[in-house]
Amino acid sequence: MSDHPSALSASSADVIVVGAGLAGLTCARDLHRHGLDVVILEARDRVGGRTYSVEIDGQTIELGGQFLGPGQDRAYALAADLGVSVFPTYGEGDHLVETAAGRVRRYRGTIPRLSPLALLDAAQAQARFERLARRIDTDAPWQSPGAVALDGQTLETWIRRTTWTRAGRRLFTMACQAVWSCQPSELSLLHALFYARSAGTLQQVIAVEGGAQQDRLDGGTHELAVRLARRLGDRVHLHLGTPVDRIVQDEHGVHVAAGDRTWRAAHVVVAIPPTLSGRITYQPPLPAARDGLTQRLPMGTVIKCMAVYPEPFWRSAGLSGQATSLRGPLSAVFDSSPRPGEPGILLGFVEGAEARFMTARPAHERRAAVLAQLAELFGPRAASPATYAEQDWGAEPFTRGAYSAVFPPGAWTQYGHALRPPAGRIHWAGAETAPRWYGYIEGAIRSGEAAAATITTS
Amino acid sequence: MSDHPSALSASSADVIVVGAGLAGLTCARDLHRHGLDVVILEARDRVGGRTYSVEIDGQTIELGGQFLGPGQDRAYALAADLGVSVFPTYGEGDHLVETAAGRVRRYRGTIPRLSPLALLDAAQAQARFERLARRIDTDAPWQSPGAVALDGQTLETWIRRTTWTRAGRRLFTMACQAVWSCQPSELSLLHALFYARSAGTLQQVIAVEGGAQQDRLDGGTHELAVRLARRLGDRVHLHLGTPVDRIVQDEHGVHVAAGDRTWRAAHVVVAIPPTLSGRITYQPPLPAARDGLTQRLPMGTVIKCMAVYPEPFWRSAGLSGQATSLRGPLSAVFDSSPRPGEPGILLGFVEGAEARFMTARPAHERRAAVLAQLAELFGPRAASPATYAEQDWGAEPFTRGAYSAVFPPGAWTQYGHALRPPAGRIHWAGAETAPRWYGYIEGAIRSGEAAAATITTS
Repeated sequence: MSDHPSALSASSADVIVVGAGLAGLTCARDLHRHGLDVVILEARDRVGGRTYSVEIDGQTIELGGQFLGPGQDRAYALAADLGVSVFPTYGEGDHLVETAAGRVRRYRGTIPRLSPLALLDAAQAQARFERLARRIDTDAPWQSPGAVALDGQTLETWIRRTTWTRAGRRLFTMACQAVWSCQPSELSLLHALFYARSAGTLQQVIAVEGGAQQDRLDGGTHELAVRLARRLGDRVHLHLGTPVDRIVQDEHGVHVAAGDRTWRAAHVVVAIPPTLSGRITYQPPLPAARDGLTQRLPMGTVIKCMAVYPEPFWRSAGLSGQATSLRGPLSAVFDSSPRPGEPGILLGFVEGAEARFMTARPAHERRAAVLAQLAELFGPRAASPATYAEQDWGAEPFTRGAYSAVFPPGAWTQYGHALRPPAGRIHWAGAETAPRWYGYIEGAIRSGEAAAATITTS
Repeated sequence: MSDHPSALSASSADVIVVGAGLAGLTCARDLHRHGLDVVILEARDRVGGRTYSVEIDGQTIELGGQFLGPGQDRAYALAADLGVSVFPTYGEGDHLVETAAGRVRRYRGTIPRLSPLALLDAAQAQARFERLARRIDTDAPWQSPGAVALDGQTLETWIRRTTWTRAGRRLFTMACQAVWSCQPSELSLLHALFYARSAGTLQQVIAVEGGAQQDRLDGGTHELAVRLARRLGDRVHLHLGTPVDRIVQDEHGVHVAAGDRTWRAAHVVVAIPPTLSGRITYQPPLPAARDGLTQRLPMGTVIKCMAVYPEPFWRSAGLSGQATSLRGPLSAVFDSSPRPGEPGILLGFVEGAEARFMTARPAHERRAAVLAQLAELFGPRAASPATYAEQDWGAEPFTRGAYSAVFPPGAWTQYGHALRPPAGRIHWAGAETAPRWYGYIEGAIRSGEAAAATITTS
């Protein structure tokens, strides 16, 4: 194996972008606007990364990130620019909450019908969380006041210390699982606070109206990537099915190799999740701090399940289609029907421990368990969808989890400083590098724009 | 890039072993004893993995794992079998302890001269730790009583709750940093308990006499790997400088590719640290559980520093050469002279946070800081060694840290079940897969033997 792929056989560009998710695509767009010649190398046979839609029976089914909300200015701007229109997530009527014992209750507004003591307890814990989150410096979480102590404990430890009742703890824990798609044991309190602060508040993270689940896009969020790629057209060279194996840099530039092909450029932007960026071979090897960081940032775990019905039958029963469950396997359910309201689509998330269990089950068992729960929530008609589809993000070799990377205790304070700075000619982008809206579509877009700005102003 | 490298051009064997550390070599030895044809593919241009020696001015300097201790039966047996003799780690005379304020004190025996209250506090914490550790099922830590609660918190959280005094906490914390080469915030309490239990007790882990630092090998532990490889000779095909990129398995066997070469076999044993095993491309992709595990097991961080003097001058001053420091950058120092006692070698470990800081400093600064501390401890002669050498294991692309992989909270309970079972024809070995002596030379040997036994009895 040659360490320095021959420059003679290499195609060349000003910048190579690794990954055609929204970070890579917006980065390529901005670089091209500045007159730079860009090559994008994408491992998959599609663009869009963690946004992804499939067509089934002529219907768009969103299998990836699908919500936008207030404060996500760059995402709304991109949608407007690309002619993709916004509509509100359906939320009329009663929401449902399923207790740990499997009882289903209807409620309106934002407060589920659970024991008042549990609600009060979860509310006081949330208030304390929000107060702590205001301390966090999202540009450098490791420099926030008390960072070492906040990063020395799991979110689980904090929840146990902060809540007074078992029911309150369960409720708060369930919300955390839904947000980070892992167990509260797996993430640093500092990371949880940073994440909320990067979105504004925990309330903004978990809310539908006024929060990060408020809006959807006609045709699905995947349209952003598809249209962006189409608009870039021939001006940017997009290579699908091209997983990058190796990045070699020296004083003259970078060589990026995928299989037996090589590209050379002045810079490379690696716009994929940190854990995957650690699987590329770098020559010379990356500094210990950057490599150590990529060893420490696993992805959360979520299986997104979509059940399609001829119509959204729950609406006529006065139900919003929104449900949360303390029982599982689905922890949260939304009405994911297209704006016209037909067909009816229920979207359910299997998250954290449930996803770890479910990924190893046969597909038919997983489907049966999900549909049985939807039937408990929405009645027997939910048991027989016209179509059922699911996306197990942890099983996807070119994502290996979702929604985003989760910092375990100690990672921000010991390695956070290596997350964003370039390693020579290698720049990092992706939703995990964004100080604002970390892990979101918005963060991905901002990170791509930031990486492009670094290169064009250097 | 072809997904299925052509079988026509592939060399073949019964088993391919990835990694020529002690796990891979012992595995290859046992497979060959059973009449199987073995190929070993090693990324480096040497064997031995985390054991490693260099010759400087005719002297062997041990830059990797170098101690053996009671209970490490397979390691002693291997040494005896290979004709490598054992001698005790030098420990006569007074040990030193450096306080956080930089005061140096002499003491004898196992208890450093610190405030009695601090010692009492650390002792009661250790007693509680040992009691908890006895609960742990080393074959399946996630099934130990109370595993979820133990895995829901950091070792840091437990230390804060368990110690009564700041000085006691510091002392216990320092011991933890020395054992796991990371901050107590970074590891799960369950992992710390498992680790100690897998070695017997925490006392065995930290002790010199009667513990895991009791003995050394003439010529260094690297001799084990060197002689093992030499003995295997032509009967096993060892390819150095051959980092594996890709493992493809189907119903007929495996193909293992490194650069443009491919080998095929019935089985492959991947005998490298988990985080590095996650950087190989697998086809078909590994199950989500196994991949998720490799995302979650970072290596500890240690820089091993060796200062060589014409003679062990500290011995004539009544010093053992053993020191512990609450100040740093070195947290622990040992007399690492060869058995004849000349030259004199002081070995210092820079661990955890100190190693993260030091890895980014220029080499001359690192050397100056280490030698300044050795001079504080052992007097001005320590400032001017004849030779100085260091090994920054985190910067090594084919190890990326040491002493071993560290499980953060949640990893054992959510992913531990995926650590040891084969993924089809792919078997896992290495010091991290051993239920006994996890992370040690002994664990590596046992894991290699276990993987070979699984294959030969299947």
